[in-house]
Amino acid sequence: ITSKLPQVGTTIFTTMSALAAEVGAINLSQGFPDYDCSPELIELVNKAMKDGHNQYAPMAGVKALRNQIAYKTQKLYGASYDPDTEITITAGGTQAIFTAISAIVHPNDEVIVFEPAFDCYAPAIKLMGGVVKSLELEPGNNYRIDWAMVKKLINNRTKLIILNSPHNPTATILHEQDINELSAIVKNQNIFILSDEVYEHLIYDGEVHHSMARYPELRQRSFIVASFGKLFHATGWKVGYCLAPAYLMHEFKKIHQFLVFSVNSAVQYAIAEYLKNEDTYLNLPAFFQQKRDHFRNGLAATQFELLPSSGSYFQSVKYGHLTDESDTTFALRLTKEAGVACIPTSVFYTKGTDHRVLRFCFAKKQETLDDAVNRLLDFK
Amino acid sequence: ITSKLPQVGTTIFTTMSALAAEVGAINLSQGFPDYDCSPELIELVNKAMKDGHNQYAPMAGVKALRNQIAYKTQKLYGASYDPDTEITITAGGTQAIFTAISAIVHPNDEVIVFEPAFDCYAPAIKLMGGVVKSLELEPGNNYRIDWAMVKKLINNRTKLIILNSPHNPTATILHEQDINELSAIVKNQNIFILSDEVYEHLIYDGEVHHSMARYPELRQRSFIVASFGKLFHATGWKVGYCLAPAYLMHEFKKIHQFLVFSVNSAVQYAIAEYLKNEDTYLNLPAFFQQKRDHFRNGLAATQFELLPSSGSYFQSVKYGHLTDESDTTFALRLTKEAGVACIPTSVFYTKGTDHRVLRFCFAKKQETLDDAVNRLLDFK
Ligand SMILES: CSCCC(=O)C(=O)O
Ligand SMILES: CSCCC(=O)C(=O)O
Repeated sequence: ITSKLPQVGTTIFTTMSALAAEVGAINLSQGFPDYDCSPELIELVNKAMKDGHNQYAPMAGVKALRNQIAYKTQKLYGASYDPDTEITITAGGTQAIFTAISAIVHPNDEVIVFEPAFDCYAPAIKLMGGVVKSLELEPGNNYRIDWAMVKKLINNRTKLIILNSPHNPTATILHEQDINELSAIVKNQNIFILSDEVYEHLIYDGEVHHSMARYPELRQRSFIVASFGKLFHATGWKVGYCLAPAYLMHEFKKIHQFLVFSVNSAVQYAIAEYLKNEDTYLNLPAFFQQKRDHFRNGLAATQFELLPSSGSYFQSVKYGHLTDESDTTFALRLTKEAGVACIPTSVFYTKGTDHRVLRFCFAKKQETLDDAVNRLLDFK
Repeated sequence: ITSKLPQVGTTIFTTMSALAAEVGAINLSQGFPDYDCSPELIELVNKAMKDGHNQYAPMAGVKALRNQIAYKTQKLYGASYDPDTEITITAGGTQAIFTAISAIVHPNDEVIVFEPAFDCYAPAIKLMGGVVKSLELEPGNNYRIDWAMVKKLINNRTKLIILNSPHNPTATILHEQDINELSAIVKNQNIFILSDEVYEHLIYDGEVHHSMARYPELRQRSFIVASFGKLFHATGWKVGYCLAPAYLMHEFKKIHQFLVFSVNSAVQYAIAEYLKNEDTYLNLPAFFQQKRDHFRNGLAATQFELLPSSGSYFQSVKYGHLTDESDTTFALRLTKEAGVACIPTSVFYTKGTDHRVLRFCFAKKQETLDDAVNRLLDFK
């Protein structure tokens, strides 16, 4: 058998979570909360199952949920998406990303990816016969995108640009300046955008989330991906969604219907009901900023050098002044010796570029974060 | 935008279920029960959520569930699959099928598909650049596979044969003779098998399910796909699984991890618990055979000509002696005028071959089946 993805191994998240469990380390590697989702939300799922919502949901998703998403998108970003033709519920953000890439990338199409990049983009592109054109960003200038470099990468085979703001793993966000540069670049070009916005509500210091939905010129060429797992502290439920103009969503659905067909019905009904209370998402930035600030304050006393964290639930640190070890070696040692698991950032670069940066997830209970900080303080 | 799947429209299941709802017809089209799953199973999901199983499951699935599947597969088919390397939990049978095809089909590879065929096979093959080599089966000889014809289709580009027993839509099953012929054909060839066995427990008249798992020579080259939605009357939960030897599962997982990553955690824990009671699956053949027999007895008094139903929860009928209308026209008219929705079988043939056969789903309450039969009796 010839592998379709010869370079792919097991994702770092599986590896690090397994190691953390094995050695009993505090798991700040894979991004998920160690506290539970709302009991109210659980009860809503239970009610939906008891109400008999246990058979196939419609292929695009439960109508009540699509309506709530349309309302929320209008309210937050002033964008109206038609629930029938422009919104599809997916089995998590990952499935939405895979499906969007499948729908748009033909063999030999080029896709611009900024690295470090979440690890599911490149395999999907390659599986479709596409070519990944990576642009490496660096911690030196806080991973800012050099748009002049982007312009140089573009040619008539460029089909798609993948954006991710708030960004995993670097916790950076797009600014208005980026939106302007991006708009200028794609204007009058047949280039599409896949905007991974699963951390849309995890944005700090009063900054604004520059969703592609806000900008008609960008929006009309964008697949926007969102995640309820990230939003509602229930990463294990695997429900997300995709927004796209009808002509793109039409192609997305063709694949979605044969890739997974539909998504857990009861969970969809429950989330539709839960979303009626807007506080469930409006309170998220404050909720996570408190965690971020607390974790940063703790880390400030350690030997690590903090990088900014403007969004997402990740905090990166530099450690190159402490040791020459590669980030993977150091992350493994930290897990085993300090008892704190994290993610080495080099795994998010195709070439394994190692800036000696580690990523920690702070979607954790305060005592977990305190415990982790104490262990890192003790670590020599 | 150039479509990746130009020939694909909306699946017939979406179309017919929507029409049935619109005109208030009894929906015997899309395959799902109109009765509920076990309250015990719902309570197990509720309990798992309350126990805090709301974050990412492991990529391959919850270990307890993989163990139960290994046990069941050993017990039923005498085959041992390693839970760690040969079993992956998927977001329904459809995702398992899509993923297996993605893992194995390279551009220009040929895939043998028997038609009528479930509608998700061909799009996945085409998306991977593969070529569908269809072999049409006919109601005239109860859709029997002519293995001499299969042999003629095989060449050095043949990568995969897709089997589906019990079969959707025709309700036929593979017999020992088929297994022997198949074994002879693939022996010493580099040909793989995707065996869609989602109706494995829906098999009647004391017949045996010839799972690929039973036959070492076939099994070592097979992806076997199964579905808990079909098993436990909860099609809306979207949980299935794939069995494959480690060298194939290794490739399957590479794609699974970037396509969906993992599946609803609480549902997996619940099913693992529920499976401990073997009656939950051992009683299924009798449960469905009672429905099949009841429905067939009712239909026998109508003007339709019954085809055999040896497995699955489908019953097909011929109507060519009644009218010259195409099966799609007739199915639409039956939905509107008789108030009973069904699936025209021509949609499962690439070429739209129309044998004037309609498919009804009998996974319904007895009163629903009676009501449908009465409507069909009244229909002129
Ligand atoms: C799909 S597992 C990874 C979770 C996550 O988003 C992360 O840790 O980056
Ligand atoms: C995925 S919807 C189709 C359900 C089904 O298996 C069928 O009706 O054939």
